[in-house]
Amino acid sequence: MPVSAPSSTALPLHGGDIAAAEARWGRPVEGWLDLSTGINPHPYPLPPIPSSLWARLPGAEAEAELIRAAQHRFNAPAAAKIVAAPGSQALIQALPRLRAPGPVAILTPTYAEHGRTWNRAGHTVSLLTDPAAANPAGVLVIVNPNNPTGRCFDPAALAELSARFASAGGLLVIDEAFADPQPEMSLIPTLPAATVVLRSFGKFHGLAGLRLGFAVTTEAELAEGLHRGFGPWAVSGPALAVGAAALDDDAWASASRARLAADQARLIAVLTSAGLELVGGTPLFTLVRHSEAARIWDELGQAGILVRAFEGQPDWLRIGLPADDTEFERLARALA
Amino acid sequence: MPVSAPSSTALPLHGGDIAAAEARWGRPVEGWLDLSTGINPHPYPLPPIPSSLWARLPGAEAEAELIRAAQHRFNAPAAAKIVAAPGSQALIQALPRLRAPGPVAILTPTYAEHGRTWNRAGHTVSLLTDPAAANPAGVLVIVNPNNPTGRCFDPAALAELSARFASAGGLLVIDEAFADPQPEMSLIPTLPAATVVLRSFGKFHGLAGLRLGFAVTTEAELAEGLHRGFGPWAVSGPALAVGAAALDDDAWASASRARLAADQARLIAVLTSAGLELVGGTPLFTLVRHSEAARIWDELGQAGILVRAFEGQPDWLRIGLPADDTEFERLARALA
Repeated sequence: MPVSAPSSTALPLHGGDIAAAEARWGRPVEGWLDLSTGINPHPYPLPPIPSSLWARLPGAEAEAELIRAAQHRFNAPAAAKIVAAPGSQALIQALPRLRAPGPVAILTPTYAEHGRTWNRAGHTVSLLTDPAAANPAGVLVIVNPNNPTGRCFDPAALAELSARFASAGGLLVIDEAFADPQPEMSLIPTLPAATVVLRSFGKFHGLAGLRLGFAVTTEAELAEGLHRGFGPWAVSGPALAVGAAALDDDAWASASRARLAADQARLIAVLTSAGLELVGGTPLFTLVRHSEAARIWDELGQAGILVRAFEGQPDWLRIGLPADDTEFERLARALA
Repeated sequence: MPVSAPSSTALPLHGGDIAAAEARWGRPVEGWLDLSTGINPHPYPLPPIPSSLWARLPGAEAEAELIRAAQHRFNAPAAAKIVAAPGSQALIQALPRLRAPGPVAILTPTYAEHGRTWNRAGHTVSLLTDPAAANPAGVLVIVNPNNPTGRCFDPAALAELSARFASAGGLLVIDEAFADPQPEMSLIPTLPAATVVLRSFGKFHGLAGLRLGFAVTTEAELAEGLHRGFGPWAVSGPALAVGAAALDDDAWASASRARLAADQARLIAVLTSAGLELVGGTPLFTLVRHSEAARIWDELGQAGILVRAFEGQPDWLRIGLPADDTEFERLARALA
């Protein structure tokens, strides 16, 4: 069914599903504190959006401006092809359609949509924990830094891996959805062949509702296939303009990185003080372990705080950043 | 190339390409009067957009609200499945991937993206002028009312056609991108089997930059395939909210239909007074014929007025609605 009723028993497939949370716990008096996603709680301040951006078909000039700003922010080499899409999820959906069915290795555990979409498109998906075990003639998907573990791969190591895949006819897919707070982890500045890097706009910029993401690659045919698959006007006029303004704003990016790092440290302190064991994370979310994680998830839900649980890892909880003192204190109280 | 430079010689593939127009004619002193699309020049007034719609991932509740409003506006039967997408173009791109390659007939001349996308996905595309000649085991695409000719098909005749296709295993694709001003032409209220109807939000509501469109069908598998192909969060938060508000606003829709009809009559009078022969059209655009259409297109371009020319029909021009007296007079002067 295109629109399905939220289930009141199953764990949510994704973070941010307030409707499912209300179906389970009802509507909290204080309102929801949604810590179930990895979205910056301090959004980029929206610039004024001229009415023509809503009214007209998105123009080629506005798209070129966005791509230029993305190249600047990502520090992409001149040879990089950058494709804008309505969210990096749309790119995750599109990639498996551009390659003949074959072996696809996914570094696990990670964001489940990668496995789901490659599998649906007829590829043979295997889940690995060691990238060296992947067939270099196939596809290898690595989320870097990884969601939800925060596991990081050094760009130099990934470049070596790319070289192996390039010579064997394979493709490396690096999902950098959470890389913005740690630009030194990005593979884009040294973009190797046989590689496509995915970037999300909404997470770091706190504007997930805007729907904007990018693929960056030196593979012209792949970029062309992605672009053609979306067709004209894939990205909304407001997203083109807000995206270009935000990606050009280096001062905001640098202040946000500092704030996210400080807030991450504060969140880790709150969680570990409450007896949760730190597993990993990034500045945008923290992963903790507890033998009674399911009970804690449910108690937090009853207190109106939504965090992310995982079906395959029942002792894990992923917790996003509270926005301010009030939210930090509410979380600390609920965990006490 | 993902972002290509506008060509200064070729006719544009689509309306609304101001960058290509400037590459050819330079920037007009008075600014462009863009009549090259069929977009309502009087947009639905944007409601206030709460910041949470930009910040959060679009929620299931907001999507359900939009679908409910679409069902109301389109007068869709309860059995109809409605899929929202980031523009009806995205649905045109997606449909050909959901059916095994086979015969696809397209009623011609029409919007070229239908032929392009079915062809690219490996189907065998034929262009017909008589729908009765189409293979009912295949796909038949009809734009109703047609772009650019305005040719209309009676819903009762289309329903009979659908029945033939349903019994032979075929599929009827009815693109109602320009049907909003003439709701009596819509096939949705009597939605037959083996049929998918596409609707555009941006044209009638004058908000093409928002990127919102719908597929309406009783075929559950087709709706599911479309929904799954886009993945979660395909439509932006602002588009969900603006779309729901606009589709619920019956008073605005009815006032806009009256205004568009009056402006269409005024436009036809301006064009025929200037010696252009009326071919057809809809309230959102008018198609005219002239043996020197190419010269008129170029003279209008030099005067800063962009209208739509067609490579395959060198004596046609499609002209959208001027917004007000000033624009009507500017067009009349340039044609004098």
